Amino acid sequence: MRVALGVSYRGQAYHGWQSQPDRRTVQDALERALGQFADREIRTLCAGRTDAGVHGLNQVVHFDCEVEREPFSWVRGVNRYLPSDIAIQWSAFPGDDFHARNSAQGRRYAYLLLESAVRPALESGSAGWVFRPLELERMQAAAALLLGEHDFSSFRSAECQAASPVKILRAIEISRRGAYWRFEFDASAFLHHMVRNIMGCLLAVGSGTRSVDWLAEVLDARDRKVAAPTFAPDGLYFVGPYYDARHRIPERVAALDWLP
Amino acid sequence: MRVALGVSYRGQAYHGWQSQPDRRTVQDALERALGQFADREIRTLCAGRTDAGVHGLNQVVHFDCEVEREPFSWVRGVNRYLPSDIAIQWSAFPGDDFHARNSAQGRRYAYLLLESAVRPALESGSAGWVFRPLELERMQAAAALLLGEHDFSSFRSAECQAASPVKILRAIEISRRGAYWRFEFDASAFLHHMVRNIMGCLLAVGSGTRSVDWLAEVLDARDRKVAAPTFAPDGLYFVGPYYDARHRIPERVAALDWLP
Repeated sequence: MRVALGVSYRGQAYHGWQSQPDRRTVQDALERALGQFADREIRTLCAGRTDAGVHGLNQVVHFDCEVEREPFSWVRGVNRYLPSDIAIQWSAFPGDDFHARNSAQGRRYAYLLLESAVRPALESGSAGWVFRPLELERMQAAAALLLGEHDFSSFRSAECQAASPVKILRAIEISRRGAYWRFEFDASAFLHHMVRNIMGCLLAVGSGTRSVDWLAEVLDARDRKVAAPTFAPDGLYFVGPYYDARHRIPERVAALDWLP
Repeated sequence: MRVALGVSYRGQAYHGWQSQPDRRTVQDALERALGQFADREIRTLCAGRTDAGVHGLNQVVHFDCEVEREPFSWVRGVNRYLPSDIAIQWSAFPGDDFHARNSAQGRRYAYLLLESAVRPALESGSAGWVFRPLELERMQAAAALLLGEHDFSSFRSAECQAASPVKILRAIEISRRGAYWRFEFDASAFLHHMVRNIMGCLLAVGSGTRSVDWLAEVLDARDRKVAAPTFAPDGLYFVGPYYDARHRIPERVAALDWLP
């Protein structure tokens, strides 16, 4: 039977999602817990691999397992074996044609940012930080230039393993609450470091270091060297993938309310 | 010259505020950083000591120091020597009659709580957790019974060093946003574990385990044994003290927006 799970995690203590021989990763912690619960080796496939320090709100994984359990038993049972900064939020039996990565119609990321003259303490590891004041309208105008289907090579890291740099960026929503900024990204898929590289560019425009039009030049150049430096992973949250409704995969988990 | 500083910290990695010989505490980290910045030993006095795992939004400390520096230099200079989960937010020269603890007219605490069938991951260490649904009206009615000047011995830990168990509880505000509950407490001063013990009782009432009237019995008993168990420190934030306006001590810092 194909099983799908929704996983939330705080990424600060992990070297990213993907299993690695000598480093602490979220996938390794999850598969170890699944193995203890189901008493057999289980390998998972995820909707979107996250980097070191990046958080997951509703990461989706799937795997096949002959062990039959009630849906909530996969949640409560596996959570017993997971560390406190990783927890299964839901489980589903989406059918054998469901694939956590290939079935995804798109993915959402959010970036949480503190604008303050003083560096954060409480939000350490959970939010990015800028000390220069940002202008909403400038960033919105720059973000609009990136929407649609484009070759995003200028925002792609050298280690990116995607087959093509062409993706559809469907939305960038920018909002503010008190000293906090929230950036929400919706795309068909994301290249490696794409959100963090776009964030670096949007902040250069928002703080007045670069012009709005500069972002169009960066996109056209299809060259990573012209863009701003990759911004910190601290405030980056993989909100989660979305699928055709027939798979009945939850898109919303309690953890989404966590972001200011 | 008397110097006052506002300190924010994430308490998860510390054995509380107060200096201890063999344990990692916030006061020790702060005084070490102050010593490195000012090149002399500095001992601080705080508005309210916090327990292991409890966070500080606007903790206030004072000390006397013959080193003369610009106000913002105390912020940026000391932050350079502090770990990422502690940061000075502001500095002030409040006058020689200012005393971080004795001048305080009151103190505020907040408790952040997740109500969810599933345990949290992202909020691990930053929010308390209940899996039973809570009723707002029941908790508000119970909280109202505690307001005013009372002997709070029933909510006082055995290790409490306060001279008197009589305190004035000025307000308990309870609100909800999505899956998150926020409890705000305002009192002349708080006994050791007082907020966590009141939280335990309010949650017993809110989940229907205890009646609203039971909380009046607990208060009247003046006996710690009749109250609910001490609730977890994870979601407890020392919002900060407040003073006479003439000292010009900031009450609000960016970190306050952090709470949902």
